Amino acid sequence: MSRLNLAVAVHGTGSGALSWKWPGTQWNRFNDFAFYRRSAEIARSGVIDAVFVSDHPALSRDAHRAPTHVFDPTVLFAAIAGAVPDIGFVLTASSTYSAPYDLARKLASLDTISGGRVIWNVVANFNPDIAANFGSAPLPDRAERYRRADEFIEVVKKLWLSWDTPTGDVPDGPLWDETTARTIDHHGDLFDVRGPLNVPVGPQGHPVISQAGGSPRGIDLAARHAEIVYAAILSKAEADTYRRRLAERAVVHGRSGGDIRLLPGLGVVLGDTTAEAYRRQEALEGAGDEDALVAQLLTRLRKNNPLLPADVDADRPLRPEWFTSTDDQGRPIGFTQALHDVIAEEELTARRLVRRVGPAGGHRVVVGTPREVADDIIDWWSGGHVAGFNVHLPLLHEDLDRFVTQVVPILQAEGVYPTAYEEPTIRGRFGLPTPAPVSGGAALPDLAVG
Amino acid sequence: MSRLNLAVAVHGTGSGALSWKWPGTQWNRFNDFAFYRRSAEIARSGVIDAVFVSDHPALSRDAHRAPTHVFDPTVLFAAIAGAVPDIGFVLTASSTYSAPYDLARKLASLDTISGGRVIWNVVANFNPDIAANFGSAPLPDRAERYRRADEFIEVVKKLWLSWDTPTGDVPDGPLWDETTARTIDHHGDLFDVRGPLNVPVGPQGHPVISQAGGSPRGIDLAARHAEIVYAAILSKAEADTYRRRLAERAVVHGRSGGDIRLLPGLGVVLGDTTAEAYRRQEALEGAGDEDALVAQLLTRLRKNNPLLPADVDADRPLRPEWFTSTDDQGRPIGFTQALHDVIAEEELTARRLVRRVGPAGGHRVVVGTPREVADDIIDWWSGGHVAGFNVHLPLLHEDLDRFVTQVVPILQAEGVYPTAYEEPTIRGRFGLPTPAPVSGGAALPDLAVG
Repeated sequence: MSRLNLAVAVHGTGSGALSWKWPGTQWNRFNDFAFYRRSAEIARSGVIDAVFVSDHPALSRDAHRAPTHVFDPTVLFAAIAGAVPDIGFVLTASSTYSAPYDLARKLASLDTISGGRVIWNVVANFNPDIAANFGSAPLPDRAERYRRADEFIEVVKKLWLSWDTPTGDVPDGPLWDETTARTIDHHGDLFDVRGPLNVPVGPQGHPVISQAGGSPRGIDLAARHAEIVYAAILSKAEADTYRRRLAERAVVHGRSGGDIRLLPGLGVVLGDTTAEAYRRQEALEGAGDEDALVAQLLTRLRKNNPLLPADVDADRPLRPEWFTSTDDQGRPIGFTQALHDVIAEEELTARRLVRRVGPAGGHRVVVGTPREVADDIIDWWSGGHVAGFNVHLPLLHEDLDRFVTQVVPILQAEGVYPTAYEEPTIRGRFGLPTPAPVSGGAALPDLAVG
Repeated sequence: MSRLNLAVAVHGTGSGALSWKWPGTQWNRFNDFAFYRRSAEIARSGVIDAVFVSDHPALSRDAHRAPTHVFDPTVLFAAIAGAVPDIGFVLTASSTYSAPYDLARKLASLDTISGGRVIWNVVANFNPDIAANFGSAPLPDRAERYRRADEFIEVVKKLWLSWDTPTGDVPDGPLWDETTARTIDHHGDLFDVRGPLNVPVGPQGHPVISQAGGSPRGIDLAARHAEIVYAAILSKAEADTYRRRLAERAVVHGRSGGDIRLLPGLGVVLGDTTAEAYRRQEALEGAGDEDALVAQLLTRLRKNNPLLPADVDADRPLRPEWFTSTDDQGRPIGFTQALHDVIAEEELTARRLVRRVGPAGGHRVVVGTPREVADDIIDWWSGGHVAGFNVHLPLLHEDLDRFVTQVVPILQAEGVYPTAYEEPTIRGRFGLPTPAPVSGGAALPDLAVG
């Protein structure tokens, strides 16, 4: 078992609905680079492995919350890499709306520039607003997006290993030849790419690949390519089931499931007492009390789960059959699946569920004191259910500061988390193997270029 | 007349053929981010307006020189922006092999993150090796590439002004609506893009647009869109002719040519005496003496100018008719055109030409003492021929250090160059107007997104 790993999300003003206009904060800080840089600095002070942003290249439709996705993640994290040492980057980028050579080069550039601190979070996109910003074609269907993601990642990996790192003494002859910089000559169903990449192999071989992997297709893609999986997991039983399914598929693809790290999302809402944490969750979501918070959850759930009745009793167990996913739904299938499973397993009421998933019904949430949160993290990790968590906090910077000064020290005191950065690269921190350069390839065909 | 402007190229190890293995340097520093960052810091110490990199997303075919293009410029400059204040960025990015929404967002992100320090150098690409990295289709012909560039820039500019900067007090209602974040609903021959961009208008309205603009098509594109033109100009007469042609085309497109700044490339080779500078030029190009340097030039010219005879006398004037461009040549048409014109105008011999363009036959070169170089720059600028220069130096960091400590102080003492950064944005430094947000647009059509 590798050590506990922690990433924290640094989207804009935090995950709380009212975070953007919280008293004492600057409402438009979602557009202020200094604010993001400070988030990364706070994370670094807590020896957090990496900061994370998800991404949609489209303006959100909910104009009543600060937009989650503003700065392009590659640019944002490159700027932070220039300013903040040590901290890693979970960088979300699309395989549906990028070209493999371009993205491979950008990620390889940042991985070398940052000294091996990049995790590429591959997404295939589910938001039709993105499609409308990239042409007249509608969003490809899910099967097509996953086929493209699979070949896209294959091409990117080949490119990443196509030019050996230039080391050693000054060469007498050329700086590279066909044995050290190799064409990949990829000709697949969707991509034709010659290579080699014009960025040599970097300090950790290549960036670590992560994937959300919720739907069956997502799990299969993760089993083929992912080194870290950032899935929606709501219970330890779900984590175990998920890891087993992933390992089964990994074996089919000739990999060992043991080399894939499970790093689910985890919302953390802190209070000096549990009750205070509950009140804080309500306040940051703009709910006057628990009933209002539950009402928010049910409203959100109904948008994506049309079978959910209008008159659900908040204190009676929800029925799993109300939560079924469809291939064309406007949110990740993994979220719906995880909800279904935890409701079936634990007979959760809406009142209990809202403290487990928050009013948006997405990733798992822990609401409590720093001790309760730390104990929860240690419990999941030490039981071997997860490698760690990708932590979301409702109010930046306040809750991030609280997490690194109140929760992380408990993890360190318990001996499960490091007190300093011991490994410069993500692979070092996650105990992941370094990919070996591939040999073979061919010289560039003769072609006159001035 | 706006003040003198200076940019410096920070490609890898410098423009000299032997720069990569120069004694006392680290040969593989073209892959070392700290080296690029230091280049930017040295440039900043000389109050240089911006650092520049050109770009090809393909490994160079000349393995006997350090590759000019390694790190992706967006990532490289974002990382430098996070580390080095003040310095601006001339960021080369392709309109042929990018998507307008993606590039608009990356450039807008960096412009806001850096506080308005971005110049986008639009290139349409002429290298078939790039095409092979982006699909099975050959490089589109020049006309098609320029058509695409034109519409591409139009879309990018609309996106850049589509979401007003969020300022003022906390809004009572939504953070944006259709009057502040506007769809662009672009439906052209080549692109369909809805918008709005999910990055608000930045500190200088939008990034400054620059273009090389050498061929007639290039000049027309520059006249439509460019604010800075980085053309190959080899004499003051060429500069005047070029500016007149550009202004004529600008008027056709409803613009004033006076708002376009001419910033030609300028190679600078420094020595304590003129003779020493000549010897240094020879040495850094790997030529034992002047005859060898001349031979290098003739060999390079013959590759692109098949009419050039094999037995040219280095001491007799070259004939202009040997230098004619073709639409499908493997280097910019502007380079060939500028050579043709200066040879016709000044009856240059190859021996004299190599001190004017270097052995690669590209941008203008000045070889001499710091005083001679400074006088040349002042002469061109004070005569109104150019706004300034984009300076290339043969050996980084040595020659860059020499330029900012020996040439720039003369410019400052003569009162033509500032001694500190007085304006935070590129527009401020170049005296360029700030584009006004466009009104109009429409609300996003109703579309269910989870």
